[in-house]
Formats: sequence, structure tokens, C-alpha cells
Amino acid sequence: MYSKIKYGMVGGGEGAFIGDIHRIAARIDNRYELVAGALSADADKAARSAQAIGIDAQRSYASFVEMAAVEKERDDGIDVVVIVTPNHMHFPVAKAFLEQGIAVICDKPATLNLAQAHELAAIITRTGGFFRLTHNYTGYPLVRYARELVQEGKLGELRLVQVEYAQDWLSSKEEDTDNKQAKWRTDPSKSGAGGSLGDIGTHAFNLAQFMSDLTVSEVCADIDAFVEGRVLDDNAHVLLRFNKEVKGILWCSQVAPGNANALKIRIYGAKGGLEWSQEDPNELLFSPLGEPTQKMIRAGHGISDVANRVSRTPAGHPEGYLEGFANLYSDIADALILHNKGEPIPAELQLIPGIKEGVAGLQFVESVVESSKNNSQWVSLNA
Amino acid sequence: MYSKIKYGMVGGGEGAFIGDIHRIAARIDNRYELVAGALSADADKAARSAQAIGIDAQRSYASFVEMAAVEKERDDGIDVVVIVTPNHMHFPVAKAFLEQGIAVICDKPATLNLAQAHELAAIITRTGGFFRLTHNYTGYPLVRYARELVQEGKLGELRLVQVEYAQDWLSSKEEDTDNKQAKWRTDPSKSGAGGSLGDIGTHAFNLAQFMSDLTVSEVCADIDAFVEGRVLDDNAHVLLRFNKEVKGILWCSQVAPGNANALKIRIYGAKGGLEWSQEDPNELLFSPLGEPTQKMIRAGHGISDVANRVSRTPAGHPEGYLEGFANLYSDIADALILHNKGEPIPAELQLIPGIKEGVAGLQFVESVVESSKNNSQWVSLNA
Amino acid sequence: MYSKIKYGMVGGGEGAFIGDIHRIAARIDNRYELVAGALSADADKAARSAQAIGIDAQRSYASFVEMAAVEKERDDGIDVVVIVTPNHMHFPVAKAFLEQGIAVICDKPATLNLAQAHELAAIITRTGGFFRLTHNYTGYPLVRYARELVQEGKLGELRLVQVEYAQDWLSSKEEDTDNKQAKWRTDPSKSGAGGSLGDIGTHAFNLAQFMSDLTVSEVCADIDAFVEGRVLDDNAHVLLRFNKEVKGILWCSQVAPGNANALKIRIYGAKGGLEWSQEDPNELLFSPLGEPTQKMIRAGHGISDVANRVSRTPAGHPEGYLEGFANLYSDIADALILHNKGEPIPAELQLIPGIKEGVAGLQFVESVVESSKNNSQWVSLNA
Amino acid sequence: MYSKIKYGMVGGGEGAFIGDIHRIAARIDNRYELVAGALSADADKAARSAQAIGIDAQRSYASFVEMAAVEKERDDGIDVVVIVTPNHMHFPVAKAFLEQGIAVICDKPATLNLAQAHELAAIITRTGGFFRLTHNYTGYPLVRYARELVQEGKLGELRLVQVEYAQDWLSSKEEDTDNKQAKWRTDPSKSGAGGSLGDIGTHAFNLAQFMSDLTVSEVCADIDAFVEGRVLDDNAHVLLRFNKEVKGILWCSQVAPGNANALKIRIYGAKGGLEWSQEDPNELLFSPLGEPTQKMIRAGHGISDVANRVSRTPAGHPEGYLEGFANLYSDIADALILHNKGEPIPAELQLIPGIKEGVAGLQFVESVVESSKNNSQWVSLNA
Repeated sequence: MYSKIKYGMVGGGEGAFIGDIHRIAARIDNRYELVAGALSADADKAARSAQAIGIDAQRSYASFVEMAAVEKERDDGIDVVVIVTPNHMHFPVAKAFLEQGIAVICDKPATLNLAQAHELAAIITRTGGFFRLTHNYTGYPLVRYARELVQEGKLGELRLVQVEYAQDWLSSKEEDTDNKQAKWRTDPSKSGAGGSLGDIGTHAFNLAQFMSDLTVSEVCADIDAFVEGRVLDDNAHVLLRFNKEVKGILWCSQVAPGNANALKIRIYGAKGGLEWSQEDPNELLFSPLGEPTQKMIRAGHGISDVANRVSRTPAGHPEGYLEGFANLYSDIADALILHNKGEPIPAELQLIPGIKEGVAGLQFVESVVESSKNNSQWVSLNA
Repeated sequence: MYSKIKYGMVGGGEGAFIGDIHRIAARIDNRYELVAGALSADADKAARSAQAIGIDAQRSYASFVEMAAVEKERDDGIDVVVIVTPNHMHFPVAKAFLEQGIAVICDKPATLNLAQAHELAAIITRTGGFFRLTHNYTGYPLVRYARELVQEGKLGELRLVQVEYAQDWLSSKEEDTDNKQAKWRTDPSKSGAGGSLGDIGTHAFNLAQFMSDLTVSEVCADIDAFVEGRVLDDNAHVLLRFNKEVKGILWCSQVAPGNANALKIRIYGAKGGLEWSQEDPNELLFSPLGEPTQKMIRAGHGISDVANRVSRTPAGHPEGYLEGFANLYSDIADALILHNKGEPIPAELQLIPGIKEGVAGLQFVESVVESSKNNSQWVSLNA
Repeated sequence: MYSKIKYGMVGGGEGAFIGDIHRIAARIDNRYELVAGALSADADKAARSAQAIGIDAQRSYASFVEMAAVEKERDDGIDVVVIVTPNHMHFPVAKAFLEQGIAVICDKPATLNLAQAHELAAIITRTGGFFRLTHNYTGYPLVRYARELVQEGKLGELRLVQVEYAQDWLSSKEEDTDNKQAKWRTDPSKSGAGGSLGDIGTHAFNLAQFMSDLTVSEVCADIDAFVEGRVLDDNAHVLLRFNKEVKGILWCSQVAPGNANALKIRIYGAKGGLEWSQEDPNELLFSPLGEPTQKMIRAGHGISDVANRVSRTPAGHPEGYLEGFANLYSDIADALILHNKGEPIPAELQLIPGIKEGVAGLQFVESVVESSKNNSQWVSLNA
Repeated sequence: MYSKIKYGMVGGGEGAFIGDIHRIAARIDNRYELVAGALSADADKAARSAQAIGIDAQRSYASFVEMAAVEKERDDGIDVVVIVTPNHMHFPVAKAFLEQGIAVICDKPATLNLAQAHELAAIITRTGGFFRLTHNYTGYPLVRYARELVQEGKLGELRLVQVEYAQDWLSSKEEDTDNKQAKWRTDPSKSGAGGSLGDIGTHAFNLAQFMSDLTVSEVCADIDAFVEGRVLDDNAHVLLRFNKEVKGILWCSQVAPGNANALKIRIYGAKGGLEWSQEDPNELLFSPLGEPTQKMIRAGHGISDVANRVSRTPAGHPEGYLEGFANLYSDIADALILHNKGEPIPAELQLIPGIKEGVAGLQFVESVVESSKNNSQWVSLNA
């Protein structure tokens, strides 16, 4: 009988959103067991939260530093920590656990700023630690299938990547209400240099690079905070230049009424195009030049092994956000086991984003902000 | 800290489809723990299957009768058994566990035929046992919201219920290949009197009654086995008469190319209409008469508490088939705890189908078959 | 330089709906010239209506009988009359013009009842006259393309034809307002035995036969007048049996809130399926069994000459209802010229419905009504 | 009885695309009569083309200069000329007719370059002539309705305008085939400084300003010719700054496989958003902040008089590209009659684009090109 990976969680206490998502994702394929947590910096709240989700009181910590130290010493200590705090805590928490030799699964963006991201990368290199970043949209089967189509040349030489991520929940001054999610996401000290950029722009950026198998080399941006009194951007318009002379546009917004979580990507090449939308994730439109558009459906006719490996249900039985997220968790489980054995990680498990993608995300945010400050001058991401 | 419900499973071994679905559904909200199984009638296969999914070898049984007897005697015996065998085994397995005082969660249809369904109902009454039927499509948040709209009179007096469930996977003689799912589903000794009728028609029928809060009183049907040599129907056309003088049509098919799992329902009343499709379950179209159609989205603007109670993610983060199924499991968990305490089951937990719906499903199948045999004579379901 | 066909119109005066549609359709390809009319039985209204649309006062008639007689005698008399009156006038008007040797284009249904349709067929045969019926939905390019796919065997042996036509404009007692369209359509003396059946059911029936190239042999029906006090049906549920053992369902309704003019057809065979919706007429979904669904678009990749012949604009420049209607007019122009020369009508012009389709439509209406009166007994259309 | 407006056409002979579109559009509402033409610079072709479409041989001219002179002198001379030549001929032809006092309807863009556009504006002012530009997408009923929603404040203070126009027909080197449309559109001497920019970018730009009732003040652009050897752009990415601090993005492309004629616009304000797509022109999505999205349909519930005035058919009977185009023609007819009488043009007829919009379009093209040449520097349109 296989044994489950024991994990602990930092953040994700009462009233949090993403913590519960991670926990469900970890459960879906039954590969993980939640055994410890520092769910809140408030000791009482941490304890209450731990009890509510079945963590033994003894392994509920008020301090992540203590948690890292104690868990490291336990025989049945956690194999991996999941970090689901606001952005500013990602770096110190990740550092603490990596320094103790404990693997890390971290929500995006990797850190509060690029300097931290570089420092984190150095720590990972130095410690030989295991670090994965939950850019969860890479977990959708049809996203991986689309990437494969691109890599196999089904679109010909690429020309264009159009990506957008639109929401509407910050159309008003939500941060002045008691909405905790809005509060920290609009606060530079907790969120970093980007508002919508950090929260959702990094997802769009990651998806664009992942699906196209290209690298953004330069950005030219115009960003705004439309809601009066808001400090961080709530909308960003970004022209993209990729390697291989591919061009693109990235738009992210949290002030676009009628959009719930509208992440959408379109890629065009000399021989074909494709289109995928996160809100309808079980369908991919593939248009070979000169032929009718094909509706490819998850687990349907023509879908590849790479995509089917991460599907659970037959075509027409919709899988969604949680299943896509769960695919990251399950792949990370396999990768972690191999990592711990010192064995090589096979290609299909290398799809999971790590610190490289984390650094790139922060480069993106800071380059966009810089470009916008300089009246949309092109800024290189490799500078 | 809460304790999980301990469950065992009958059926669902290697190569099965629905067993894994139930296991994931049971895990999503972390309310269940799988501790025993009679996963196959073949002892070796049962053991292998049990090991693969983490059931202790001691609690892997080759016989469901033995399992019922042994589990009953254990202090840590299962609280509930989940039955995911082909249809012909539903009744004997349910009976065996109910007779031992063990609660039952059963895949649909309830039994092989109506006579068994009545007998099962009698057993439940006699034993005071707990029995729930996984007509999982009732678990979708927007299905429950739609039912609420109907009940609140937002559609006015109902007039029409149009339901259809189309698939294409049996368009060829799939049962002559090594497709196990096709084999038993087209075999009357395992599937019952209905082919597509039993497999998916019962879901459509259940959904129509659930969402409209009406009862089908009569059916007038024309059913076919289009694939040569097939014994059971692979397509059924059914005119419906409901109580309250509502009319409807039910179409189910497994020979409609281009349809993966296309369960769709539309309800019309004097003041409005609504439309929902299982393949796009996060959206409900609501059309108040004389006003523009509104796209209601799961967890979105205007959605009720009843629906939001069974949502896990914000609007735009698609939930799907597994989450809908999980809603049944979580509600059943709550209901079972209350049942075991002898406490009343609140209204929101009474939405889960049970033996009453099971009997109705078999009445539907047998009435449709009878009507079709009699050149589409109207047949009463209450006869 | 080509000369235009001179036509007159009976019906279609002030406040009418369909007359203007016919006039636009006749103009689009510039093949017709409107020169005469008996636009209303009320002489003043006829004159005003004629003036408003540019008919010379001398050729505005208060009586269609007079119009037929006078136009016949003029050297520049009309080549064809277009009948756009309520149904009960179709027969007498068509008869009057045919008896004068003048060609007829008639709105559907052909006549008020089946007896008249048979009589009209006899008149056409006797006079050798020219008669075409504007089942305009057969004019859409993709409808013709779909018929071709069927005929070429791209769907394999057919099994199912599902057709529906839903509207909502009669959900309330509209005929009690000053809505003229509602008044005559709900009045048996003007509309015939069918309400929604005659108005839109005949279109659905015609489209089902046209696209499938099959003939409905039997119907089993349950029809209703849901709105209190309404005499004719406003909803019809009809099981269909076609020749070649194909089965189907036809649903038409004028009490389905949220539906404007939702005519939709799906055809399934052993090798594929297709789906077309009138409200989105520039797209046809084609699903070869075992392959992804293809979105075929009007004038797009893979579309045939038969369909492209009746397209005017490139793909992506939507054509609609009026262009589809115009295709009938232009094909009728060509056919009429050949008819007048005594030359054979080529296959592509024989797609236009005529009296045969007119008789079939009335057979359908009366058979459905009879079936419904006999508690949904199957009724043969060939009886 | 009303008299029709007599028009002549320059360009639009055999093999042309847009000439026939204009002629159909002019016919749909029966307000125009085509009586003269200089359909080609080749005299034989001009004559053949004229005969084919019913222009009297005497009024078929090989020279537009001659046509302008002769028609001016005729008692029954044309009221207006329609210019449907390649772009480089727009200015000389428009000038010739305006100088003769003849009204002009001109396809977009107004001229080959901005200098000509300014010169043309001066000519119009000097002559007091009548000039209208067929940015036909402004003719769609729901486009006008959307503009009204914006003007009425239903979206609140505007923040964002996202517009895109994607095609795929130039994905390969189509200009090297015998495709005339491709040849001149990719030739700077006939098309001007913009390729996709002039052909479709100007439409997108015009629509963005029209629907938002805003003015673009600055552009920041990155344009490309992806197909090897192509001189003019086939793709353009443009950041937009409007007056009132509104921001936007414009993307136009003729190398995006799977896109036929995908013009799409989205506008977002503090209180709501809207979305309209040219390929599905009978539907407008309107999302009031905090409420479900509403599907507004042409001629449907809630649509205004402004939009209904330019609808011909009931909701659900799709109108398309030709009807939208016809709306311009009919409004121009009314405006021309008033202009000729010296009477004021009412507001609803002032929606039709004229030389002001023509100048703006050329400013847009040349500013985008300049910005792109200067590595995406912001360029003011008012410079």
C-alpha cells in the first residue's frame, strides 16, 4: 500500500480563500495527508482553524519558524509545506522551511519582489531544496494538450500570443469594506509592486509562456489604478515581444464588469491557431489554416496521452478548477518522491512551475511597472 | 476535531469507471474514509484493487455477504457501504447490508427492476435503514438554484419540461469489443429492461422531476435499438404528462454522434423559462417573460444561499461533475449522522434522492418499455 | 441587359409583417420589380399601402379577383403574384391567379386545410401552372449544405432527426390585445386546424424532411393550448417515424419564454451527426463519429458549391433571414423563366418547395391534430 | 409616391467584392436606383460590367472624370456617386464629383493618406458638398444601442475600451496568387501606409470611437508584417489613450488562423460592461456591475427606439452584414434629401460617418505607423 505525503500548511486559516482550495486539490487524488499547520499568526485563530480542518492540536503552530524547526525534528514530520499566505510572507516562510530541509509548495507569485525571488533561487540552489509554484492553470489537461500541439508544430512557426485575464470584483473600492482578500491584494506592503499584475497578470504571463513554449523578452506597458485612492494597478495593458520574433498582448484587469475569472489565451502560427478559455476549460478550439475549426474536448476524440494522463472523467463530464489544481498536486507528489530518492524527474513532471517561473513572474511585474513609469518604454526582462 | 465517516465499497475494482468517481467525490470535502471493500467478485482482483487504493488487506473481501457480516461485528466497522456494481447486483448487495443494519449509498438505478425496487423499499421500511441513491446531477449548485426558482414561482405556473440526455459512445457495436462498460450496459441480465433508458434516461427523468418539483404521471414512448444485434434500447423518445397538467418530452440516446454527455433541461412557465446544460454546469439561463435572458453563474450575482452552500470556489472558477457528485456525499454525511442520532433531517438534506426516487426511476423504465411495446400507448406510472 | 420579373402582391398592406419581408427578399438580388398589388381588402388602405411602397395607383386593386383579370390582360401584366395574406385566403387567391395563367409564389402553409391543398394541387396540374411555397428556411446556404452532407452519406445511414421550433410571443393572451398577427394566427377560421402547428410547426416539419431527404410516415402527438381561452394549439409534442426506419421528435411552441425564433435541427446517423440553429445560421456543427466536432461556417473552409452559390458575402460577414429568403426568390426567378420557356428545371432549382411540400405540410397538421384527439395514437400521413 | 435617389458607381466592376455589397445595401430598403457607372478603368470591362448589372450602356463610362462632367449636365443625372475603388482612387474620384456638385458616398478609408484627407475636408468645406464614409459596422442596430447605453451612463464613467479585428485570409502570401483583393491591399501605392491597419484597423478604430463616444488621443504601437516579403503590416498591436482618461487596446490582424471576420468590442465603466461581436451581431451582452449579465437581442426586450428604427425583422430572425450596411444607405438617403433642401440633419442621421471620421482614420493609421517606427513611442493623434 502506498503511503501518503505528509504536508503542513502556512496560512489558510479561517476566512482565507486559497488555503481551502489547496487542501481540496491535495485530497482529490488521495496522495497527501495534512498533519500540521501554522494557519494564522494569531495563536487562537490558528488553533481554531486547525481544529476545524482536523489538524492535531499539538501540530498547530502559531509560528512558522517554530513549525519548521519542530517538524524537522519529528520522525513523522511533514514532507512538504504548502505556503498560502499573502505574498509578503512567501519568501520568509519558504526560506525557513528550505533551510530546515523541508520541501516547499508555494502559491504564486513566488515572492514579494524580484530581489527576494533571486535570493530564494539562490537558497534553493544552495540547499538543493525542492520548490514548486502553483501556477495552477498549467494543470488543465487541455492547456497541456495545447502546449503539445504547439511543440509538435501543428500551428507552424508561431507569430502571435494573445492572453488576457479579466475580473470585475475590484470595480469598486472593495478594500474599504471588510473584504480581506481585497485589503491585502491592494496593499503594496503585502502584495508587492503589482496589484492586478501580481494577482492575475502573473498567471496570464505564466500561461502565455507555458502554452507557447516561448519566453517574453520585452514589455511595453500602460498600467492604471482606475478606482480612486487605489495605490496599486487594477488594470494593465502590456505589449509583448517574445523570443523567435513572436509578438503578443497581455491584458489583465480587475475592473471589467461582467468578467468573473476570464483567463483566455489565443496562439497563432503560420499554419494554425488555437483558443482556450479558463471558464470553459473542457474545450479547446483548434483551427488548422484552411480547414474548419475543430472543437477538441477534454478526454475526447484526438486528445493525447499527455492530456489524458491528467483527466479523471470521460468526455462530457466537466472537470474544472479544482481538478486542474489537483493535477499539480499529484505531479508534485510524484516529483517529490523522486527528488527525495535522488532520482531524475521525467519530462511530464517537469511541466510543474518552479523557482525559474517564479523569478520570471517577478521580472514581468517589475518590468511592466518600470515600463509604465517611463511612459511605456520597452523594458527587457533579461536586464 | 470531527471524525470521518468510515465507508466500504462494493464493486469499483480495476477497470471500473464509476467506483473511482465515487471515491473522489467522497474525498473532496474530507468527510469520508474508505476502509473496506469487496471490489470484485474475483478474489485476486479484489485484493489487487484494494491494495491499489489503500484498503487494508484484511478488510478486502471477495464476498459482499462476508463483508456485511464481518464489518457489522467490528468495533471500527464501516458506517456505510457504497454500491457501484452493475445494476443487477444493487438489490442483493443493498439488502445484505441493510439487513445487517449498515447504511447504503447506491448508484442508480436502484435495482434491476421495479419488483426489486418495491422489495427494497419494503426492506428499508422494515429495517429503518438509511438508503441514498446517487442521482448525482441533483448535486450541481445551479440545478438546486433552478429548482428554487421554480418553487418560488419565478417561472409562474409551469407548462413545459423538456429534458434530453444524448451520448454517442454506443453508436457502433461497442459491446463486441473488450469495453466492459458497454458489455454489461447492453446486457438485460445485468442492466435490466432499459439500455439507454436505465443508464441515462433515469438520470434525465430524475432531473426533470427534481428541477420542476413535479411528478410524471404518464408516458407515451417509442424506443429503438438502432445498432444491429443490440437487444436493449440505445435511443428512447418519450412524451411526458406531469401532474398539474404540465407536458414534456424526454429524449435519451447513446447513438447521437457529437454528443459526449449532453444532459440538458429546459423548463417553461407562464412567467419565464430556464435552461441548463450539464456540460456547461456553471451557467443557468433564466428568461423572465418580457425581459432579456439573464446568464446566472454559479456563485455569481443573484445566486441563492441554497446553491452557494454547495459551491466551493468563487464565480468563474469552474466546478464540475466531481464537485456536483461530492455535494451528494457531503449532504449524505450530514444526513447519516443525524439519522444515526435519530434526529430529523432538515429540508436542504432531503434533496438527496432515496428509495422513493429509485422506485420512480424503475417505474419510468418499465412504463416506457411497456408503452413502446404497445405502439406508444400512454402508460400510467402510478399503475 | 436582363429584364426583371414583374410581380404583384396580394396581402402585405399596412401593419403586415411578412409582406415587407417578401418585398425585401425580392429586391436583394435585383431580379424582381413590384408593379401591382391588392394589398388589402379595404380599398382605402390598399391604395395608401400601394402608394407607400411605390406601386402605381392604377395598379393598386381592392380585389384580388379584379387584379388577376386585369393584370392578365395588360401587355405589361405581372409575371407572378406573391400571396402574403392570412392562411384562409391562400387558396382562393392562388386559384384565381392560376386560373388566369399567372404564376404564384405563396407563403406557407399552402392552404387552410388539406382538402384545399389537394384541390390546389389538382388546379396546378390541370392548368400547368407555376406554384412555389416560401418555406424560406430551406434557403439558408448551410441548410442546403447539410442536406448535401446527408445525401453524400457523410452521416452514414440515418437514425434520428430532432427538430424544434420555439417562440415565446404567445405566452400570454396576445390575441386579446391589438396585435393583428396574434389575432388571425389564433383564429381557426383564418389559420386552419393548427395554431403553432400551422404557423411554425409546418416550417419545422418541412425543414426536417428537406435536410434529411426523408419522408415522415407517421406521427404520434400531444398538443395543447396552454393559454386559457385559446382555441388552437400553442404547443405541440410530436413523435415522428420516417421512412427508412428513421425516428424523430418535433416540438413546436409559442409559449416558451426566452425563445425568440428558435428553429433548431439535429440529424444523427451511423457515421456522424450535425446540428444547425436558425438563430445562428452561419454555423453548422458537423461531428464525424470518432472525430472532433467541426464548426463549418458559411462560405468558409470545406463548404460546397451548392451552398456557396447562394452566399453573397465572405465568411464572417453574417448573412441572415432576409438573405436566406432572397435565395428562394432568386431561384424562383430562374425557375420561372425556364418554366415560361418550357425548359426543364435543373436540380439545384428543384430544391424550392412547391405544392407537394404544401400538401405534406397540411397532412402533417391534420394528422397531428387527429393523433392528439385520439390520445396520441399513431396516424399515418399517407392515409 | 416617393422617388428613388439616382446613383452612379465608380469601381465595383467584374471580380470586385465590395461593389456588389454596396449595390445590395442600396437596394434593400428600395431608396436608390443605380443608373450610371465607371465600373472599371478598362473600357471593355466597364461596359461588360455595366451591362451585367443593368446600367444603360450610354451611362457606362470608362472615365470617372467624364462621368462626373456628363452626369452633372443631364437632367436626370445622378444624385450621388458611390466610390468603391481601391484606396488610392478615393481622393481623385471624390474630388472630381464634389467639384461638380455631386454628393459622394465613399468606402473607407477616406483617402490614401492623411494629407489627402485634409485636402478632401477642405474641398468639402469649400464646395458645401455632401460626403459620407461607409464605416458600415456603425449601422448594426445593437452597435447603436450600445452607444446609447454608454451615452445614458448605464456603464458609469468609462474606463476601458478593448477592440479587436482578426482575420486569417492573409496568413500566407496570398498576394502572389491571382487574388486581386490581396494584391492591392498589400500594395502601399494603392492601400496607403497601412496594410491590416488601413483595411480593418480603421474599422476597429472607428467602432471604438463610435460606440464609446470618445476620442483616441494617443497611440503606442508595435506593428508587423509576419509573412515574408510583405511590405505592409498584417498585424498591429496598439495601446490606446482616449480622452477622459480612458484606456484601451486595439488589435488587428490578417494572420490569425481561425478568424474569418472577427471584429469584437468590449467597453467597461465604473457601473457596467458590454460586449459585442460582429460575427454574432444580433446579440449584445450587457453586465451591470453586481448583476447577472443580460443577453440583449436585436429587436428584443428592452431594446430602444434608436436601434429598432434600423431593424427590419422581429427578434430571432437574424439580420446581418448587408442589413447593417443598408442602414447606412437608408440614413444617407434621408440625410441627402435634407441636405439638398438645405434643411438641418437630425441627430439620428448624424450617426453616419463623414469626412471628420475619415480624417481621424488616416490620423490613426499614420500615427500607429509612426509610433511603431519609433519603437512604440506614444504619438498624439492631434499633432
